[in-house]
Amino acid sequence: MGAVPELAGARLALFGTPYDGTCSFRPGTRFGPAATRNVSEGIETYCPVCNADLEDVHFADIGDLVLPTADKAAVLLAIEQAADELYSIGVIPAALGGEHLVSLPLLKAAFKHNPDLVLVQFDAHLDLRESFMGSELSHATVMRQISKFVEPSRILQVGPRSGTREEFETAQKFGTYRPDSLTPKELREWVGHRPLYVTVDLDILDPSIFPGTGTPEPGGVSYRELQAWIVSLAGCNWIGWDAVELSPEYDSTQVSSIVSSKIVRTLVLSSLAKPC
Amino acid sequence: MGAVPELAGARLALFGTPYDGTCSFRPGTRFGPAATRNVSEGIETYCPVCNADLEDVHFADIGDLVLPTADKAAVLLAIEQAADELYSIGVIPAALGGEHLVSLPLLKAAFKHNPDLVLVQFDAHLDLRESFMGSELSHATVMRQISKFVEPSRILQVGPRSGTREEFETAQKFGTYRPDSLTPKELREWVGHRPLYVTVDLDILDPSIFPGTGTPEPGGVSYRELQAWIVSLAGCNWIGWDAVELSPEYDSTQVSSIVSSKIVRTLVLSSLAKPC
Amino acid sequence: MGAVPELAGARLALFGTPYDGTCSFRPGTRFGPAATRNVSEGIETYCPVCNADLEDVHFADIGDLVLPTADKAAVLLAIEQAADELYSIGVIPAALGGEHLVSLPLLKAAFKHNPDLVLVQFDAHLDLRESFMGSELSHATVMRQISKFVEPSRILQVGPRSGTREEFETAQKFGTYRPDSLTPKELREWVGHRPLYVTVDLDILDPSIFPGTGTPEPGGVSYRELQAWIVSLAGCNWIGWDAVELSPEYDSTQVSSIVSSKIVRTLVLSSLAKPC
Amino acid sequence: MGAVPELAGARLALFGTPYDGTCSFRPGTRFGPAATRNVSEGIETYCPVCNADLEDVHFADIGDLVLPTADKAAVLLAIEQAADELYSIGVIPAALGGEHLVSLPLLKAAFKHNPDLVLVQFDAHLDLRESFMGSELSHATVMRQISKFVEPSRILQVGPRSGTREEFETAQKFGTYRPDSLTPKELREWVGHRPLYVTVDLDILDPSIFPGTGTPEPGGVSYRELQAWIVSLAGCNWIGWDAVELSPEYDSTQVSSIVSSKIVRTLVLSSLAKPC
Amino acid sequence: MGAVPELAGARLALFGTPYDGTCSFRPGTRFGPAATRNVSEGIETYCPVCNADLEDVHFADIGDLVLPTADKAAVLLAIEQAADELYSIGVIPAALGGEHLVSLPLLKAAFKHNPDLVLVQFDAHLDLRESFMGSELSHATVMRQISKFVEPSRILQVGPRSGTREEFETAQKFGTYRPDSLTPKELREWVGHRPLYVTVDLDILDPSIFPGTGTPEPGGVSYRELQAWIVSLAGCNWIGWDAVELSPEYDSTQVSSIVSSKIVRTLVLSSLAKPC
Amino acid sequence: MGAVPELAGARLALFGTPYDGTCSFRPGTRFGPAATRNVSEGIETYCPVCNADLEDVHFADIGDLVLPTADKAAVLLAIEQAADELYSIGVIPAALGGEHLVSLPLLKAAFKHNPDLVLVQFDAHLDLRESFMGSELSHATVMRQISKFVEPSRILQVGPRSGTREEFETAQKFGTYRPDSLTPKELREWVGHRPLYVTVDLDILDPSIFPGTGTPEPGGVSYRELQAWIVSLAGCNWIGWDAVELSPEYDSTQVSSIVSSKIVRTLVLSSLAKPC
Repeated sequence: MGAVPELAGARLALFGTPYDGTCSFRPGTRFGPAATRNVSEGIETYCPVCNADLEDVHFADIGDLVLPTADKAAVLLAIEQAADELYSIGVIPAALGGEHLVSLPLLKAAFKHNPDLVLVQFDAHLDLRESFMGSELSHATVMRQISKFVEPSRILQVGPRSGTREEFETAQKFGTYRPDSLTPKELREWVGHRPLYVTVDLDILDPSIFPGTGTPEPGGVSYRELQAWIVSLAGCNWIGWDAVELSPEYDSTQVSSIVSSKIVRTLVLSSLAKPC
Repeated sequence: MGAVPELAGARLALFGTPYDGTCSFRPGTRFGPAATRNVSEGIETYCPVCNADLEDVHFADIGDLVLPTADKAAVLLAIEQAADELYSIGVIPAALGGEHLVSLPLLKAAFKHNPDLVLVQFDAHLDLRESFMGSELSHATVMRQISKFVEPSRILQVGPRSGTREEFETAQKFGTYRPDSLTPKELREWVGHRPLYVTVDLDILDPSIFPGTGTPEPGGVSYRELQAWIVSLAGCNWIGWDAVELSPEYDSTQVSSIVSSKIVRTLVLSSLAKPC
Repeated sequence: MGAVPELAGARLALFGTPYDGTCSFRPGTRFGPAATRNVSEGIETYCPVCNADLEDVHFADIGDLVLPTADKAAVLLAIEQAADELYSIGVIPAALGGEHLVSLPLLKAAFKHNPDLVLVQFDAHLDLRESFMGSELSHATVMRQISKFVEPSRILQVGPRSGTREEFETAQKFGTYRPDSLTPKELREWVGHRPLYVTVDLDILDPSIFPGTGTPEPGGVSYRELQAWIVSLAGCNWIGWDAVELSPEYDSTQVSSIVSSKIVRTLVLSSLAKPC
Repeated sequence: MGAVPELAGARLALFGTPYDGTCSFRPGTRFGPAATRNVSEGIETYCPVCNADLEDVHFADIGDLVLPTADKAAVLLAIEQAADELYSIGVIPAALGGEHLVSLPLLKAAFKHNPDLVLVQFDAHLDLRESFMGSELSHATVMRQISKFVEPSRILQVGPRSGTREEFETAQKFGTYRPDSLTPKELREWVGHRPLYVTVDLDILDPSIFPGTGTPEPGGVSYRELQAWIVSLAGCNWIGWDAVELSPEYDSTQVSSIVSSKIVRTLVLSSLAKPC
Repeated sequence: MGAVPELAGARLALFGTPYDGTCSFRPGTRFGPAATRNVSEGIETYCPVCNADLEDVHFADIGDLVLPTADKAAVLLAIEQAADELYSIGVIPAALGGEHLVSLPLLKAAFKHNPDLVLVQFDAHLDLRESFMGSELSHATVMRQISKFVEPSRILQVGPRSGTREEFETAQKFGTYRPDSLTPKELREWVGHRPLYVTVDLDILDPSIFPGTGTPEPGGVSYRELQAWIVSLAGCNWIGWDAVELSPEYDSTQVSSIVSSKIVRTLVLSSLAKPC
Repeated sequence: MGAVPELAGARLALFGTPYDGTCSFRPGTRFGPAATRNVSEGIETYCPVCNADLEDVHFADIGDLVLPTADKAAVLLAIEQAADELYSIGVIPAALGGEHLVSLPLLKAAFKHNPDLVLVQFDAHLDLRESFMGSELSHATVMRQISKFVEPSRILQVGPRSGTREEFETAQKFGTYRPDSLTPKELREWVGHRPLYVTVDLDILDPSIFPGTGTPEPGGVSYRELQAWIVSLAGCNWIGWDAVELSPEYDSTQVSSIVSSKIVRTLVLSSLAKPC
């Protein structure tokens, strides 16, 4: 998709974080980065909605991180270090999941270099549990963990439609989630000129168009809605992003992988668009 | 999903009716109850749309009926007797199909105990044929059979989009079907305080979100629309319901089973909501 | 579906053109005609949206053309001759693809007999490239080839959402594509009483409802939208149509084949409706 | 595969019996005849093991019987009459199932015209139950029913490896089954010059090569073994045969359908071979 | 399959250990116990090879252990305690995996109660690595860990065909593996009257009959061979067994689940057979 | 699998030839090279049958050739040139198909540099037709074309079991095929010290273990048999090889891709083994 394997000259670096060690229902997001890349050959580099072309921007794909998957703490550290190194040389980290827990070390690195960042989370779930399946480090607790160093007023949760009663109460207390629908214009205004990290849990999409994920939740948003939100952020001050939770084992028609690949294209083009 | 296996103290009893003996096109609804239960472990007990939790209501899951599947008349009798017994002890029957013909004995039992019931049918089909494949007892004739003891003015058919010309003419003559779309508010007003039986043929949903059924019909309603209709009936005087026609053999991504499980959650919560 | 195998007395003839020799991404449209026919047994002959029944119109299904698939030029010639013969005896050709390149010989035959035709293309792609994968004759160049004998002002491209920057620029220069959405009424007015050929690349539909195609593009139109456009043309002066790009290998739930079969039903009923 | 649609001049007539009304575990054999025909286009007409070619023998394929599938008794009668008519005009009936119960009416017709027939059954199951799922007419009772008019000494059961203790005891009492393996030569000698009917329940094959059946049983025979048994009977006095229990819904790779098609080729060539 | 849910009176207790936390290639063995049970309804209780019937033996199925899957050490402890409790009340533990690591705590409990046990491992892999993916506790190291308390001379490894050079050298040094094939009679003699634990990694089977596993290895043993080895041990002094590594996500035809269910039937019947 | 991306120092170079333009039945071998590489991460580098390890040999994987797939003549030329260049620098070409037609240009290059080569073909088909589907250049004619410059006495065809009567007669006339089975020792003796090219059409394997191919033929050889033939050739004078006809679209369990990857491992190890 127009990416080069070398970092030299790149403003952004794609890398895979193929970890799914805490997934509770349907495993397999470890295969997400490979599936997204495999279908990318069949995808155009030009996006008519963005009116932009991947061949006109400079980004690298440095492959998948090699992760010691049997040791969760070591996995999280390896991801944090990889992002930290990219920040050190002025390259935007852009991660392909893997499960949502990978956003925790990515945000740690982002926060270290940008303590005034804001975080936009697209997700069907709030991920605000204190613990899950006997652990505080899980795809279902990731936002709770992040909220311990990024203050809730700097977090916006878009699209949640499933969770425990406690999670919804927490989100309302934190003020991270507004039940009313959010227009792209409102989203753009909320972000403003602040340093922006975007985490896309692809399960925000309706399972009709994105069945290939661990915890599909009917009643989700359409591809056009998600695309419009992301495109509205083109020209913002992006400092990092991730797209997580593609599980190709449940994607018998390959459509989820194609959607993932096109959302990644939209993210690359939006995060590298000229400031405005 | 918060159900107990014993009837004692329960206000509602779930049970499976795994019969698909008259299905004409793609068989397999016999596996529907098992598939709905299998995925239910991955489903939250809390529903943010209902703002209610399965753990706060009392209902039982008494398993699947054992049916003599090679003898259609005996199957129908067994289902009718099971429902009849539940009515006798004041428990609401809630059946998981199986094919739509199982609603005939369920309605017979409901009508015996509630001769003034009204019936709301969510369905892509009218099921109003006089006979089908050489028989008057079929998934395609079930509403015609029911209309012989429940008078048509007490029946509302929501969502039909496929059938013979004769069926559509019959539905208009009966007044059971209005081609204009129906709002949740209009549905609620039509039901009022009358005893309510709801039959959900899950094929009312668009096949994009519910491919796992015997006769998928494109152009259907969305998950949110069906959910809104059911939730609008929370607090009505429910006396029974069924959810039928899940055929997991055609559900390669498991999404249909997940949808079935969440619609069942919505039905349990709505039918056990406080009167209003 | 109410078709007879003999041409005598038929106003329209269905035939399969099972060719996928130039497909670039996911092959298999060669199996499209068979899949469309296989599921047609489970489809009603009556369409409530059209309020018309296949049993009331006269059309033939003359089977698949036997194509020398290893020789592209010979394949194109065979299709053109088959259509030419049908025009010679006053029968409307109606082809089931196969890949979109089959529309080139179909339009050549249509143009020979109706030089004042207008062409409506429903498609996710513009297919306006000069060449593709080293050839000028490809599914991705077919509209460019057709535009060399049908003048662009007589072509309307509905639904494109993917392509190169050059293709979108060409379409705007040609005036064949308007980025604003098109209502059924506007479509009908554009066509008027002119001889009408309609080519339906089924990938115009969203992959949620039509995953079974070689190049699925998320963000597409719904079944109801496509149906409304086609039905709006009922009573126009139809001279031919095709429905292409069903690839059943990627249709694990059979829903794409069912959609194809129902779109074909809508096309038969609309193209044979009484003039108005 | 070299078959003509007309009976005139044919020595044997293929026809489908798409009935699966009594199947207990995994339904779908109703789609067996269509699947066998669909893949037959990819199969050579020449068989190197038989050293014979379908193009050198005269047989017809008269399509599927239209069966009133909601009425079991009527289905069985329709099949018996179809076979009876073929016997009346001197054509060998050759049926594609469907479930194994279809062999009951086929044998009734065969026995009426050939009361001294012998029956060879290739099958993973004995099908000797007195009743099953509340009925005496089932795929699991079919051989018991047949043994009421064809005396057991004229029946040979090859390959059984699953059933109840009672069925195995019955088979040993009847003498229809010998636990020791049977060579092709021994099979040929047992048949001799007597009129021969062969029923092939394809589940005799190991599920590694034939997963697409309702009741797969590991530990089965190989394709080469089944082929060798059938070929050993070339030149015998064949009066009819059937091949049943292909269920293409469980054949994700199409290999079961291809095996069915090649076994049908072997049966046609063996049953029409020159006497010897 | 003839099991009761209560322990009272049972000589053996089945339980699921749905853990797959260290799996390296294709995850999903967590769903193994459910899949084995789901298909068991379609399996006969009588086994003609054993000439024994599940209805004649007394065993319980106490369901799946509830495991804190995000904490590996806690998972292993929970399994060991469950087995320990069964030994304390004189019931044979029989576990359905899950991945092979579950055998480690099962053997710890078995060894505590039977320090003179012998262990027969049926497996495509030696599982003798010192560490794997950064951990000493993994499905690939499980036999190495067990060999630290069960001395190698009491272990027999049957069927290995894949691994590192070091593993094969270790197995030859330990004397746990003999490259020559092993007859059922030799196996029986090796075991003798010693207390016997059997661990069956189902990937010992050839992937043609058992594709549904995380690390399929072509060139494996047939179902009949594995069955013969197990049946040869009927009447030995069984003290426990497990059957692991069924991953139903890779079992598109359900045949792997059916094989698992029948191997479990063979294990139950063999481990409860009368001593001889 | 131990390959490096650079040619420097390598004795053998793997490359993909993803072309399936003439395939007649089930397309998709274009995806074969990618599927073989994808699963190779889960495969051990050590082979216990060869007692050799990929990490001990020097070979490169130079990726897939970029082929102008819409122009068959240009595709064949590109493959021939790629192989020719490798021969010029003393590196053994080793191609991953793609369809079998790719062997034609590979053999042309091999013959140019080694006019005294012998060719061993493992295949279910003879591929000896004069023309197929209107062309002389097809997967079904490839051996006929090769036999025009490699004299038949230098060709050995192993495993054919399907084809036309004419092909079998040709093979017997040519002497390239002996109906009797061939032992590994006989194969080794036939090859001797002559320069050896091996073409492996993976459909020689039985579809039970290798369903993922365009033309599966039951009754094939086992993985162990094919492995033994190849290993018997270790130490011969290899000058090139290819492994073709993996079609991953028909490999729902991934087992075919795994088999392909392990056969490639065996080919690399055998072709780079020390002379003997």
